Amino acid sequence: MRPGLPAPSNNPNAEYPFILDDGRVSFRVSAPLARKVQLLPLMGEPENNGSNGLGKNPYEMVMNADGFWTVTTPPIEPGYYDYVFVIDGVWVNDSGSTNSFAIDHELSFIEVPAREAMFYDLRDVPHGDIRQHWYFSGLTGKWRRALVYTPAEYDTDPTRRYPVLYLQHGGTQNETSWVSGGKANFILDNLIAAGEASPMLVVMDNGSTFLPGLKRLPDPPPANNLFERVMINEIVPMVDSTYRTTADQPGRAMAGLSMGSHQTLQIGLAHLDVFSHIGAFSPAPMPRFNVNTYYGGVLAKPEEFNRKVNLFFYGVGTAEWKICASGKNIVEKLHKAGIGVVYREWPGLSHEWRLWRRCLQAYAQLLFH
Amino acid sequence: MRPGLPAPSNNPNAEYPFILDDGRVSFRVSAPLARKVQLLPLMGEPENNGSNGLGKNPYEMVMNADGFWTVTTPPIEPGYYDYVFVIDGVWVNDSGSTNSFAIDHELSFIEVPAREAMFYDLRDVPHGDIRQHWYFSGLTGKWRRALVYTPAEYDTDPTRRYPVLYLQHGGTQNETSWVSGGKANFILDNLIAAGEASPMLVVMDNGSTFLPGLKRLPDPPPANNLFERVMINEIVPMVDSTYRTTADQPGRAMAGLSMGSHQTLQIGLAHLDVFSHIGAFSPAPMPRFNVNTYYGGVLAKPEEFNRKVNLFFYGVGTAEWKICASGKNIVEKLHKAGIGVVYREWPGLSHEWRLWRRCLQAYAQLLFH
Repeated sequence: MRPGLPAPSNNPNAEYPFILDDGRVSFRVSAPLARKVQLLPLMGEPENNGSNGLGKNPYEMVMNADGFWTVTTPPIEPGYYDYVFVIDGVWVNDSGSTNSFAIDHELSFIEVPAREAMFYDLRDVPHGDIRQHWYFSGLTGKWRRALVYTPAEYDTDPTRRYPVLYLQHGGTQNETSWVSGGKANFILDNLIAAGEASPMLVVMDNGSTFLPGLKRLPDPPPANNLFERVMINEIVPMVDSTYRTTADQPGRAMAGLSMGSHQTLQIGLAHLDVFSHIGAFSPAPMPRFNVNTYYGGVLAKPEEFNRKVNLFFYGVGTAEWKICASGKNIVEKLHKAGIGVVYREWPGLSHEWRLWRRCLQAYAQLLFH
Repeated sequence: MRPGLPAPSNNPNAEYPFILDDGRVSFRVSAPLARKVQLLPLMGEPENNGSNGLGKNPYEMVMNADGFWTVTTPPIEPGYYDYVFVIDGVWVNDSGSTNSFAIDHELSFIEVPAREAMFYDLRDVPHGDIRQHWYFSGLTGKWRRALVYTPAEYDTDPTRRYPVLYLQHGGTQNETSWVSGGKANFILDNLIAAGEASPMLVVMDNGSTFLPGLKRLPDPPPANNLFERVMINEIVPMVDSTYRTTADQPGRAMAGLSMGSHQTLQIGLAHLDVFSHIGAFSPAPMPRFNVNTYYGGVLAKPEEFNRKVNLFFYGVGTAEWKICASGKNIVEKLHKAGIGVVYREWPGLSHEWRLWRRCLQAYAQLLFH
């Protein structure tokens, strides 16, 4: 048994959330005047996607004499979970926890540590930087911010050029999510230090870039939508002119989770002159999926497709059952059509960062060989 | 009159807070079951520091039939203000606003835009990056994160070396505060683009690094405290070995706001072999200040001091009246002792980002000549 400890995601001097020695987690919030307080685990569309490691139903909290409401959960699997307190119907962030951007605003999250070393831990290896880079987008008329991971060695040899992974967040998340929730930089640091991934840049930009009135991608995704044009005409050229990239199709990958996976499929498959590696993590079901008509028919030409595409990766969790069933169906159709695709599923994982961290770890190892 | 608009600090799709055409600001929060809801402007120690542009007293909010509580303030001066809603006694972040780190956790803020172009705006000039850099600190036994501003030209000439400004946040803020609240990167971008500041790196690290049991700096600040050792023995060498710096005393400045100003005075003045420029923005009053005994007596040797120190800058706002009175008194003693010091005060400004942005703008122009 290990002793209990405050969660590693806690703010300075915050004792709660507190991880007990047996893996249960205690939450606490002061609300002396409240009538009803709950702890609510958060995830997108729980009706379709199962529950994350914190569960999907609210926990009822109980008020102590000092005005603090508390609850202790059952043992929680290691991982990252968004949550809020619901105090008399109002969503309230936990002042003890760090925030992350989800559901279009900043919400509390807890990182439950594992007992053993994990592939996403901050370890004693060389670390890349995460750069915030501002640039003007003529297509949207706005300044935008990209987050760019540069591997630890990037600044030591000013002549070497690197391949680039364009990595997209999910719906209502933003360009910071793959760092705060995904720990993408630590996953890459660890893989690169172990020689299990090629040194690469990772560009994380904001995919919530829709034409007016459009809040989500229709199925099938439309060609030439706004984010596609921003990606191809603005982000990729900006990255190639700002950073030391290989600036060629073999050195460009795209991947994304949930909404970002649909953007990756739609943008990546429409631009096989730009991208050679395509990764779809947890794509929402596509009941009308058809290899002959989707993505401009590019999947109906398997020889050409397989020649241009170095890697086509499709990852799901078995606990996001509709997504998993859809994925199996789509991958079967792709195989029948002669399209090379790497399919991976993770037992028991749902539509959550525990899954997407594993998708990235698996995908990154297959890139740029 | 301009038309009203959502605040530029709003989250995606959030209509409130809403800036009316006459500069008043409407806030809104849904809490149908609440009995009392207030809008609370936040700032450190308002009893000593006056009020910020939002005021210092809570605004009473009123519930509409739809369960939304609203209030409209008087016209608000342009600037950045931390605030929360207080719902039946509980501090609640505004889901419509971006958060910033203050009072040891993430809280809502609003940026009220000016009608004219401001020195801290994101303008059409070349932009530097903000890098998040992780490094291990043997002195604290922990991984730490520094934020490093690299000027726009940094990546274009891989042989050029740059001076460095070490820029510290205030109490209960963190290494992100000079970006989220201070807009330090945009201030530097604009100054450098206009030729009004030398291209420089700006390193922002976490100064809430205390020995166990110590939560604030005593007066006079103790020599050789923990953050001093981290700064001198870990941060400065890490920066000089990671980035292309001049790595010499003439090319190092330190500055900070509030708690960070005391750290700057204590660390900077104790290490005049390391730093040549010292900037104190809004130091809390030092009633026992004595040129002969403070800071190891370095102020009692004006010739040596003035030879080593290229710039000693002291900035306050007149509305933080105790700090302003203390500053005048200290600067008078310094002048009498023959110490060269640049004193600047800003009329009507208090202990807030409106002041500190102006302190940085003034200080940065005087660096590294």
